[in-house]
Amino acid sequence: MAKPLPVSPLAPKNPPRLPPLPGVEIAVGNSGTRYQGRPDVLLMRFPKGTTVAGLLTRSSMPGAPVDWCRKQLPKGKARALVVNAGNANVFTGKAGRQAVEAVAAAAAKVAGCAAGEVMLASTGVIGQILPHEKIAATVTSIAGQLAFDAWRHAAETIRTTDTFAKVATATAEIGGVPVRINGFAKGSGMIAPDMATMLCFVATDAKLPAEVLQALLAKGNDLSFNCLTVDGDTSTSDTLLMFATGQAKHVAIKTAGDAKLRHFAEALNGLLADLAEQVARDGEGAKKLVTVNVTGAANAKSARRIALAIANSPLVKTAIAGEDANWGRIVMAVGKSGEKADRDKLVVTIGGQQVTQNGMIRPGYDEAKATMHLRGSEVTIGVDVGVGKATAKVWTCDLTHGYIDINADYRS
Amino acid sequence: MAKPLPVSPLAPKNPPRLPPLPGVEIAVGNSGTRYQGRPDVLLMRFPKGTTVAGLLTRSSMPGAPVDWCRKQLPKGKARALVVNAGNANVFTGKAGRQAVEAVAAAAAKVAGCAAGEVMLASTGVIGQILPHEKIAATVTSIAGQLAFDAWRHAAETIRTTDTFAKVATATAEIGGVPVRINGFAKGSGMIAPDMATMLCFVATDAKLPAEVLQALLAKGNDLSFNCLTVDGDTSTSDTLLMFATGQAKHVAIKTAGDAKLRHFAEALNGLLADLAEQVARDGEGAKKLVTVNVTGAANAKSARRIALAIANSPLVKTAIAGEDANWGRIVMAVGKSGEKADRDKLVVTIGGQQVTQNGMIRPGYDEAKATMHLRGSEVTIGVDVGVGKATAKVWTCDLTHGYIDINADYRS
Repeated sequence: MAKPLPVSPLAPKNPPRLPPLPGVEIAVGNSGTRYQGRPDVLLMRFPKGTTVAGLLTRSSMPGAPVDWCRKQLPKGKARALVVNAGNANVFTGKAGRQAVEAVAAAAAKVAGCAAGEVMLASTGVIGQILPHEKIAATVTSIAGQLAFDAWRHAAETIRTTDTFAKVATATAEIGGVPVRINGFAKGSGMIAPDMATMLCFVATDAKLPAEVLQALLAKGNDLSFNCLTVDGDTSTSDTLLMFATGQAKHVAIKTAGDAKLRHFAEALNGLLADLAEQVARDGEGAKKLVTVNVTGAANAKSARRIALAIANSPLVKTAIAGEDANWGRIVMAVGKSGEKADRDKLVVTIGGQQVTQNGMIRPGYDEAKATMHLRGSEVTIGVDVGVGKATAKVWTCDLTHGYIDINADYRS
Repeated sequence: MAKPLPVSPLAPKNPPRLPPLPGVEIAVGNSGTRYQGRPDVLLMRFPKGTTVAGLLTRSSMPGAPVDWCRKQLPKGKARALVVNAGNANVFTGKAGRQAVEAVAAAAAKVAGCAAGEVMLASTGVIGQILPHEKIAATVTSIAGQLAFDAWRHAAETIRTTDTFAKVATATAEIGGVPVRINGFAKGSGMIAPDMATMLCFVATDAKLPAEVLQALLAKGNDLSFNCLTVDGDTSTSDTLLMFATGQAKHVAIKTAGDAKLRHFAEALNGLLADLAEQVARDGEGAKKLVTVNVTGAANAKSARRIALAIANSPLVKTAIAGEDANWGRIVMAVGKSGEKADRDKLVVTIGGQQVTQNGMIRPGYDEAKATMHLRGSEVTIGVDVGVGKATAKVWTCDLTHGYIDINADYRS
């Protein structure tokens, strides 16, 4: 097992305290499955009437909890969530299916609901049988500790190789009534879109039909976790779930297009983007947060592919790690994307400084200035590919010795 | 500039000596462009009647020499080749086009041919203006040293971060007449198919129409360099050229389908596969040669995509570097490929040992044995995805601290 990793130098300095959210109770405990001396099981309980929406990995090798959620989500109702860290319950065949059923049954008892109203997620090692009796027993034993003020514990509990807990909170109003959104996430390696590989759980006291919640969440995901890549590897367990308890007393909302949701949607998008950026800030071994902005692309899909080609290029990522303004590798990455781009109109910028012009280096380009920018902890790369008007933004991090250390030595 | 890198532990122990090939003259020299104390310019001269075929990078940001070759190749004739190492003449705008014209003109003078019969390739840093007058002057000054027995020098000259020169030679017969094939290659980072990123030059004394040569080369490339990936990054300069001097006195060949070419095609395919494998053996920082065999895929394209998803996964490659039989990451990589695969029929093998069965770990799987296999310098991973009959084979290498060292510190 891993030695504790040092906290990422890119970790937010002042993480917010997540306030209680009406109706949402939280308890955590240790199941002894894999980690010692830290909680590894999270139980959340939601009041009656809570709606749920979710986005799940597109991997063709999903874990049993992902299969479970995919089956339950269309009903749009949830009363509990159980997450365990250390064992992903992926590629565990029939035993995996039995495990999710047993854990759901234990949580259903605690929440007084049907098993299908329990959402599940697991993260950790792939391919080991989940000792579900230990998880279920922990769920049962911590039921008495359910409390409203344990959000920080929730975020800590779901960590694996994460070096810090990722939390965010926001307020919004719906028709003049204040509502709150709390969220937390985990993830550091195996992060890539479709959808971004991680676990993220969001709750709000807003009262929203499941279809509305799903539409808002899908949109927010597209602007956040789908703009994120650490190593281009997509996990088998990606799960983003959002619960709406309906405790806030605002006007009834029927459709996602309702103008009264605008403020709420903005707050949600901001919260998801914040969490996604925190995941990039905790990329395994990351020393630098990298933002790639692509403009001038033929269409949005093409813009994103180009941005991802840059953000996933090991040569670009190692150059950034080495603080080497090797912009030729950015050009290379655009070229390999397979997307339409005009070499002779391509404009690369580093830290806002224009590097290229007319298919070559710009006269007057100041490499020392670009290097200074790369020495900082936040790096911005821009590329205008000169063929259209579409744009994309992607967050990633540099590729360092730390990534090799973590992933060559740690079975996560 | 880089310190000399230690020779890859995977380098072939007894590289062959490439014998003279009738009609092919070689000279090398130092232009002082970037490297000191080693030749960096290669000149090859071919006799009248030499045909040429080639495959070039699909990057949308090709270097000026690639543009040049793409323009000249359809004529199918060549009398000279100039390659320089240290500067790729990529993303150099109008200056890049002037450079190739100047170098081609200098070589055309030496070979007594039209400039369009000179093939060109450059490798090295992107985005710096090539000091073409130095290259051209070197071409002119080494013309007097053209010799038949300098193949080894040719292979040494085109190296950049390569830790050893990659050479191969083969003999074949066409209608009972013996012919010879010599080849050499360079490449270590920025290696990925479409087509594999590297320079490779092959010559034969066979007498083959350019169209026939092109068909044979395309097929051989598909079975060799297109099965190769080091980091998933495709260079702007990929160039595979083959020259047929026509000095051998065999029967006339009109079509690539001629049965008399079978032996020759086999020899060529073997030689290209040998060189491609050598490139993988010299992957930047490589300590292990990894072969990924995919079977049971829906179609050949799908099989290759799955194999590449595994071979390019940083998590798989770091696990191999760490000699960790973390087969869950192989499952993850299959899952993220986006290709059809049956989780519950998936069979993963490591070093020939079956790891999975019925969507989970196989009872009796011996992890110690898998670890022993991973401790060796040649690793074989097999995946049967259980949906069809198509297969693919891909070579790659592990992802080590060496890769980070080379690419964070060296502007190649």
